[in-house]
Amino acid sequence: MADILERRRRVLGTGPRLYYDVPFQPVRGSGTYLYDVRGDRYLDAYNNVPHVGHCHPRVTEAIREQCELLNTNTRYLFDSVLDYAECLVGTMDPGLDTVLFTCTGSEANDLAGRIARTVTGNDGVLTTSGSYHGNTIFLRSIDPSGGSSSSGSPSWWTTVEPPVGGNTEDPAAYDLSAEAYGSEIDRALRTLAERGHRPSCFFFDTYFCADGVYPTKPGYMRKAVDAFRVAGGFIVADEVQPGLGRNGSYFWGYQRLGINPDIVTSGKPLGNGHPIGVVVTRRDIAEAFFEVDRYFNTFAGNPVSSVAGLAVLKVLHEERLQDNARSVGASLVSEFERLRGRHVNIGAVRGEGYLIGVELLARDGHDSAVSDARTVINEACRRKVLIGTTGPNRYRRNILKIRPPMAFKTENVDELIGTIDDVLTDLSDGNL
Amino acid sequence: MADILERRRRVLGTGPRLYYDVPFQPVRGSGTYLYDVRGDRYLDAYNNVPHVGHCHPRVTEAIREQCELLNTNTRYLFDSVLDYAECLVGTMDPGLDTVLFTCTGSEANDLAGRIARTVTGNDGVLTTSGSYHGNTIFLRSIDPSGGSSSSGSPSWWTTVEPPVGGNTEDPAAYDLSAEAYGSEIDRALRTLAERGHRPSCFFFDTYFCADGVYPTKPGYMRKAVDAFRVAGGFIVADEVQPGLGRNGSYFWGYQRLGINPDIVTSGKPLGNGHPIGVVVTRRDIAEAFFEVDRYFNTFAGNPVSSVAGLAVLKVLHEERLQDNARSVGASLVSEFERLRGRHVNIGAVRGEGYLIGVELLARDGHDSAVSDARTVINEACRRKVLIGTTGPNRYRRNILKIRPPMAFKTENVDELIGTIDDVLTDLSDGNL
Repeated sequence: MADILERRRRVLGTGPRLYYDVPFQPVRGSGTYLYDVRGDRYLDAYNNVPHVGHCHPRVTEAIREQCELLNTNTRYLFDSVLDYAECLVGTMDPGLDTVLFTCTGSEANDLAGRIARTVTGNDGVLTTSGSYHGNTIFLRSIDPSGGSSSSGSPSWWTTVEPPVGGNTEDPAAYDLSAEAYGSEIDRALRTLAERGHRPSCFFFDTYFCADGVYPTKPGYMRKAVDAFRVAGGFIVADEVQPGLGRNGSYFWGYQRLGINPDIVTSGKPLGNGHPIGVVVTRRDIAEAFFEVDRYFNTFAGNPVSSVAGLAVLKVLHEERLQDNARSVGASLVSEFERLRGRHVNIGAVRGEGYLIGVELLARDGHDSAVSDARTVINEACRRKVLIGTTGPNRYRRNILKIRPPMAFKTENVDELIGTIDDVLTDLSDGNL
Repeated sequence: MADILERRRRVLGTGPRLYYDVPFQPVRGSGTYLYDVRGDRYLDAYNNVPHVGHCHPRVTEAIREQCELLNTNTRYLFDSVLDYAECLVGTMDPGLDTVLFTCTGSEANDLAGRIARTVTGNDGVLTTSGSYHGNTIFLRSIDPSGGSSSSGSPSWWTTVEPPVGGNTEDPAAYDLSAEAYGSEIDRALRTLAERGHRPSCFFFDTYFCADGVYPTKPGYMRKAVDAFRVAGGFIVADEVQPGLGRNGSYFWGYQRLGINPDIVTSGKPLGNGHPIGVVVTRRDIAEAFFEVDRYFNTFAGNPVSSVAGLAVLKVLHEERLQDNARSVGASLVSEFERLRGRHVNIGAVRGEGYLIGVELLARDGHDSAVSDARTVINEACRRKVLIGTTGPNRYRRNILKIRPPMAFKTENVDELIGTIDDVLTDLSDGNL
């Protein structure tokens, strides 16, 4: 391992980070498992990119076949990009009928921002306070975790808290809170207006994953969405993490929220690892955009990407993986709730399907749940189970993120829960 | 064809453009040829994405093998991304030793801009007046062909003319002109300074393709580069079109110019169609960037992309395709010069290797060489030869762009030249 780390430092530098204190070195993947250089098997309860399972043969075969036949670009005519676009539109609600392809979720969100700004004629952008939408200069400038900006946060960007109130079980508190959340949007719009900016778009992950996983009850976001729309801005539903059936009950996260976004973006799960991103919007918006601007992306929507994306949708359907995420995901949530009864430092279990946040609390006499969360994922990896952490910034990354491939099975749930249970016990016993 | 066009309109809208008035509909590709739905064979003298030839079996096989084995991300350790990064660095000059992967050339240029701004602490950007560097919000805002910006051109961006003077045959005029071009950079820097901006980076395509293909004599850019550097900005060499041996004599366009860029970007040819982009920079720049910012790209540098990129470099080397571009490319230029003797409306032939611009002039009694260039490429396509046009904007797109796969052979040159000769003859005879 020292050798590969040294090679990595030499050619990639010391900047890029690795998961886990003892870096994981996989050499093979299949279904919900990864295998390391020693042949040891790891349960993957974290990676949503291999959406239908690592190295799914249907996807691999589709890529191979098309690679041998033709790979070109969308300035020429070919069927597969249309087959794929039609399939994607078929999963969306009426009105969301026009597809623009990109290669990554970052490119999709950047393009969504460009479309929204061009068509509304405004430049104001709203996000939630712990969001992440990608790595272009534009998206990095609306990243609350900050970074590059030598010039500080742009005046055209402001944030609202994630809809934490939408996760309460009390109906009265919920209604009140939804009303209050709508007012938060109005407040944010006033902030932008005071700085001389009108709203172009409100980006949000429909599961608020980076904010800490706040799936939010259906309907809760409607007032917020209406308030933003009345002011002339577009709603951009970022489905990079929640999309493609991960919720179990709904194909897209925005459907679960009961809203109609103006623009939907996705990336990660679309190609099972092949670089695909997508923007889906209404025809009137697309036409207004192309009237004054243009967009072409050399690799996006190429025949190989298109058949890869199509194969993922087909496998998802034929293997009923959305149903699997709903039913097995429900038992996964119950099991984590059961663990919450056994471990006082589990504060909340949020999520449905295969997108779950397990919030750790600081233990008595220990001041950092964030450091505990790091310990848990490192120790789980040592015990050959892969999970991750999330949270709005590094001081609040105390949430275990469970986001496995959609083929995750009942026996995988047992293995995952057993390992987390043991790790948490060892943690509380002072053995870690 | 009507059916597929209608389907396309329905799901992609009417915005995205197609090459050729009668859209080309390929279904199969092999080497330097594409085949349409009727089985007709087309000579590809335009596509640089299938760099080592359409559907090269070595690249296809590498992708298949890795797809079946493992596809994951660079937060884990694996060898292929290091193998690929080491190979890339091996083609660069000493000092350009650190690699950051992206999925597209746009992402690469956007990241280069982000690195330059972060590390220099400045935000001023310089480009040539007819350049194209990609489609993110940042890159679109420095695109002279304009488009989306509701707020006009950013104050932190200015342009210089491409180095047209570097294409003269007269040594005295050339030296004078190189001096003058250096002064142009100083003038641009003053413009930025007057608006309150210091320089972060000077982006240029090392062949100035979008400007109209101005390969520029070695050494000509040195004064310009020095002037920009003295002011504290970085040189970003955009190798999306010129890179990977296309010039024949040099592997990268910047080497031909005899300059040492601070950052090199590429995209299109890297993966033979698989979405790969790259930023290569100096270690000190990368470390300074990662000290205050971060970068991670889910798909970039994944194992499948890495083996695809590696396979392209290996095939390029083993099949001696750079040598092929140099020798056969030289005869291609001679043949176009010969055509220039036969057709008075060929104004100039610029380029070396497999990146050639053939400038059309307006014919007597006809006012548009741009419309002639359109006619020529449409008619060539009808005669089953694919070429394109370029130029700094749509009113000046009178340059035929010849940019074939690197496996383009002597017999392909004959076919291409014969067809262009015939088309130009028919054009001047009034038969088109």
